[in-house]
Amino acid sequence: MAARSRDPEELLGQARGGDRAALARLLSMVERGGDDARTISRLVYALGGTAYTVGLTGAPGAGKSTLTSALIGHLRGMQQEVAVLAIDPTSPFSGGAILGDRVRMQDHALDAGVFIRSMATRGHLGGLSLATPEAIRLLDAVGRQTVLVETVGVGQVEVEIAGKADTTVVVVNPGWGDSVQANKAGLMEIADVFVINKADRKGVEETRRDLDLMLDLSDLSELGDWRPPIIATVAAENKGVDELWDAVTRHRAHIEGNGFLAKRRDSRLRDELRHIVARRLEIKAREICTGDRWDQLAHEVLDRSTDPWTAADEMLKGVGA
Amino acid sequence: MAARSRDPEELLGQARGGDRAALARLLSMVERGGDDARTISRLVYALGGTAYTVGLTGAPGAGKSTLTSALIGHLRGMQQEVAVLAIDPTSPFSGGAILGDRVRMQDHALDAGVFIRSMATRGHLGGLSLATPEAIRLLDAVGRQTVLVETVGVGQVEVEIAGKADTTVVVVNPGWGDSVQANKAGLMEIADVFVINKADRKGVEETRRDLDLMLDLSDLSELGDWRPPIIATVAAENKGVDELWDAVTRHRAHIEGNGFLAKRRDSRLRDELRHIVARRLEIKAREICTGDRWDQLAHEVLDRSTDPWTAADEMLKGVGA
Repeated sequence: MAARSRDPEELLGQARGGDRAALARLLSMVERGGDDARTISRLVYALGGTAYTVGLTGAPGAGKSTLTSALIGHLRGMQQEVAVLAIDPTSPFSGGAILGDRVRMQDHALDAGVFIRSMATRGHLGGLSLATPEAIRLLDAVGRQTVLVETVGVGQVEVEIAGKADTTVVVVNPGWGDSVQANKAGLMEIADVFVINKADRKGVEETRRDLDLMLDLSDLSELGDWRPPIIATVAAENKGVDELWDAVTRHRAHIEGNGFLAKRRDSRLRDELRHIVARRLEIKAREICTGDRWDQLAHEVLDRSTDPWTAADEMLKGVGA
Repeated sequence: MAARSRDPEELLGQARGGDRAALARLLSMVERGGDDARTISRLVYALGGTAYTVGLTGAPGAGKSTLTSALIGHLRGMQQEVAVLAIDPTSPFSGGAILGDRVRMQDHALDAGVFIRSMATRGHLGGLSLATPEAIRLLDAVGRQTVLVETVGVGQVEVEIAGKADTTVVVVNPGWGDSVQANKAGLMEIADVFVINKADRKGVEETRRDLDLMLDLSDLSELGDWRPPIIATVAAENKGVDELWDAVTRHRAHIEGNGFLAKRRDSRLRDELRHIVARRLEIKAREICTGDRWDQLAHEVLDRSTDPWTAADEMLKGVGA
């Protein structure tokens, strides 16, 4: 099989030709980090990209996977090539591991127009916050028009990752207040569209009023002067999914029209760049404060033949800091 | 007045000759950070030191200032030159500002053998965690045999600072559980001596049992195989203060005898050195991600003429990272 290659450039050619095994291998390389990941990053970045990313986040049990699966069905009905990244910062597993649980997503497992992938914490420098945009650019480069980024919970990393999509969908349930109290403010900040899923349960109107009240108090200029619509869905019965995609499409048109999408992507890339620089220096600091040279300088400080600042200068000499 | 000089070396000479205004000026320089602070650090470090540091920490209202004042009285009775650093990470004020409240400490304000100083967050690189050891070395260099380091609360920075003393005293009150629940574990880790202050209130024996139980579960090797004694005091009436100082003295003899003091000071200096290196790199990262060069590279990434990793490489080139 051609996909047995370990050369990123060769694998990328195969993946762009539709080879899913090659794509899977490339994603594993991205996740692991290191030289291969950087080679892929460079190759992929030069290819540019047109994919639109939609983030989905919400408390565990809110029905995000079911909703994602319903959205896949909707997009496939429009002949779009879809990719899903399921991000789980708490899991040591990745690849196919989590998907065993995602029975509904398995509906699409044999559809060549759908590519589903779980990502968890591996060795990637900077963890999932840095690996996710790399993975998205790779999926973009192999021709996926829409990339759905689903995160498992509402922790800081998950909200950060979902919030960096072009359009972010926050999924709540009737009576959501209790389950996401911890990060309500974080969710309000990133939501472009609200979904009240499991809307066949009672409490939908109260939840809608809650959200509306919070939106009234929000600074919408942070969202590109867009007021997030609130869509009621019953994902398990495919109800409200058209309306949800319609809201995502309207949001896209709005931020493309007023230049906010370009601004958002610009600031996202600058953040990523800053993040890479900070991580590289962090690794450098760890390297510096170890080994024979460090031991020697620490001893000189301890016996007072030098002082801590001079020793730090000495250690940082090769680093220009 | 001679103390009007701004030359650190001249000021240090004056301070070592007993000039309190010169010492106060040097401490302000240390607090502010920058070149003067580093000059002082180098001068002072070379002088070595013999001072013993005692940290006092505990929840606000536990009576730390009253206890500190009582300890000053005790030490002055032994003809010791004492210095007190009152550390308040939450206050923008320093110097004499806080001391207005510390009525009891004012008892010692006219005693030339006592030097009391508040330190708060100013511009010092690394904040109070880095400024405090510098200030201690300065007080040491001007001949203070004992430096009491009092922190206002039980926040992370405060516990970290107090925990880096040679002997750390944790002050609690009867029924302490409720007030310090948040950082009980942190306090248990750093306590060499426990004080139950306001021991004229009820609940002293329950608190003692609580502490004993927690000590039974602790790994005392982390404290140099020392089991922290539990001393009951009523600082406002000067009760138990002799016993407290006796416990501090026994702790000092114990860790001097088994080599743990040297080990503790060694690890403290290594931490400080690591901290300085990390802070310097942090500043470097902030410098790198700003200015024309940064803007230019960010633009190249945005228009895809380069990728984020290559841009980061480019930016880090001068830094060898």
